[in-house]
Amino acid sequence: MTILKEPIFLGVDGGGTKSRAVLMDCDDNILGVGVAGSGNPIYGAHQAQHSIVVSAQIALEQAKSKHPMLSDLQLNDVVAGIGLAGVNVPQMHKEMTEWCSPFKAKYITTDLLIACLGAHNGGDGAVMISGTGSCGYSYVNGKSQIIGAHGFPQGDKGSGAWFGLKAIEASLLSIDKIGPKTSLLKYLKEVLLVKTVEEIIEKVASKPSSTFASVANVVFLAATEKDAAALTILNEGVDYIANMAKLLEGSAPPRITFIGGLSKSITPYLHATLQARLAPSLSPPEVGAVFYARKQSFLSESKEILIN
Amino acid sequence: MTILKEPIFLGVDGGGTKSRAVLMDCDDNILGVGVAGSGNPIYGAHQAQHSIVVSAQIALEQAKSKHPMLSDLQLNDVVAGIGLAGVNVPQMHKEMTEWCSPFKAKYITTDLLIACLGAHNGGDGAVMISGTGSCGYSYVNGKSQIIGAHGFPQGDKGSGAWFGLKAIEASLLSIDKIGPKTSLLKYLKEVLLVKTVEEIIEKVASKPSSTFASVANVVFLAATEKDAAALTILNEGVDYIANMAKLLEGSAPPRITFIGGLSKSITPYLHATLQARLAPSLSPPEVGAVFYARKQSFLSESKEILIN
Repeated sequence: MTILKEPIFLGVDGGGTKSRAVLMDCDDNILGVGVAGSGNPIYGAHQAQHSIVVSAQIALEQAKSKHPMLSDLQLNDVVAGIGLAGVNVPQMHKEMTEWCSPFKAKYITTDLLIACLGAHNGGDGAVMISGTGSCGYSYVNGKSQIIGAHGFPQGDKGSGAWFGLKAIEASLLSIDKIGPKTSLLKYLKEVLLVKTVEEIIEKVASKPSSTFASVANVVFLAATEKDAAALTILNEGVDYIANMAKLLEGSAPPRITFIGGLSKSITPYLHATLQARLAPSLSPPEVGAVFYARKQSFLSESKEILIN
Repeated sequence: MTILKEPIFLGVDGGGTKSRAVLMDCDDNILGVGVAGSGNPIYGAHQAQHSIVVSAQIALEQAKSKHPMLSDLQLNDVVAGIGLAGVNVPQMHKEMTEWCSPFKAKYITTDLLIACLGAHNGGDGAVMISGTGSCGYSYVNGKSQIIGAHGFPQGDKGSGAWFGLKAIEASLLSIDKIGPKTSLLKYLKEVLLVKTVEEIIEKVASKPSSTFASVANVVFLAATEKDAAALTILNEGVDYIANMAKLLEGSAPPRITFIGGLSKSITPYLHATLQARLAPSLSPPEVGAVFYARKQSFLSESKEILIN
């Protein structure tokens, strides 16, 4: 039987597609995990708060079922670290910090810091992220640097949503005979399970970035066939990631990690020198959120704690 | 006093930003006009229907106040022609044709056909449109051709929303020092009345295409200073419009007209030959909707009419 070393912390990664929660003891034992819907407050603070709590509850139930000595544990017994996409937007920050959460205390920060702390197990380093959105972030000697993280469609270059959007754009231009013929169109119809251009539009019009990200893989499928339109998109995305890496090197991070759902697909197209520089991710962002909560909790022990 | 020649028809242009209505008699006298919110069913069929009815009511009230002999006229006395963006999407088409409208009868078609009929006063021709969205359309010898009209952000190249998006993208890339310095950023902050990048994001994140279109003019402002980023965007947009014109010439339209809020800004950058080919618009789309309703009404006199 594991001996659980208290206090237990909750870490939550409130991403654009999913909210992921983890409960950890002080020896880094993972007691329970939970996943729920979008935790990005930019799509609505209440929705994000709901997803965060649901993911935390699932993690709590799992922890209780695995560890009978936790049967009395409740959400208001745990200190939470929460990393949120969009929390750099002033209105979002206000809504999330003023939220009366069910946790004993909460420490809210960006999704970027928790991703970085996770990737390097609490140590200094940099991360490049290409998931639904994209960005670069470094945390070295207490100083952070952010590149991108501007959201879709105005930012998020090199992200899943961006690759998906570019694939749809190129497909529509080819249908109109303004852009070159491209096998992106064939793959797009397959992935969306549709046959006509009207159906493509219906599937994506006014949809969130996650819908665009869900078709990102068509670029990589078409690129294996040396499809010209796909390779143009891929080169633009890869150039962006390479520029991001160059900028991050400016803060001399001990490690650089490339994470997010698209990172595995993009990495083989990066320059060999950059590929060699990339270090594996040590822990996921939600574990980074636990590192963050522990640190903040320690720092605030002599200060007034931010209750709820 | 004008002698009104009945029947009176209602024409409605249900655009992405505004719904515009006009009441006309059979001698093309405009009896009243009305403007309301978005009439594009892609943002919700009920909202579109509401905007259409509101714009029609305003036009009706104006007609009544100007022409006392119309004091008993009601919406269910008039046959309506309604041109709608998004009605080419099957689900939108269904929701709008099944709508139990307050009109005597309604004839629904695309925003493109009514724009084309309006621009050429009911005659054959082609239109290129750059407003909130963009597209090309020709109607010659009973045959129509559509280029674009795929919506934002996946389509609508060369439109206001597209110019706005590209300006924001370039500004954000310059802030991150990945793209070149650009005066687009200065103009963008001025137009949005903001000072920081976070505020730019907050103003545009998850906003409809009309928000992006509202900043399109920054590209033209920066282009007058020979700003490199602005000129790159402008050239891409202009190339797209030129390609559209080339494709439309394939159907040998007697006239080609360039309409929409951005057309005046773009025209000076088009090739002189194309500029010389462009013919002025004779009437707005809502008047084109009246031409459409008259024609359909005439055609259906011997058939069962589509009541409500």
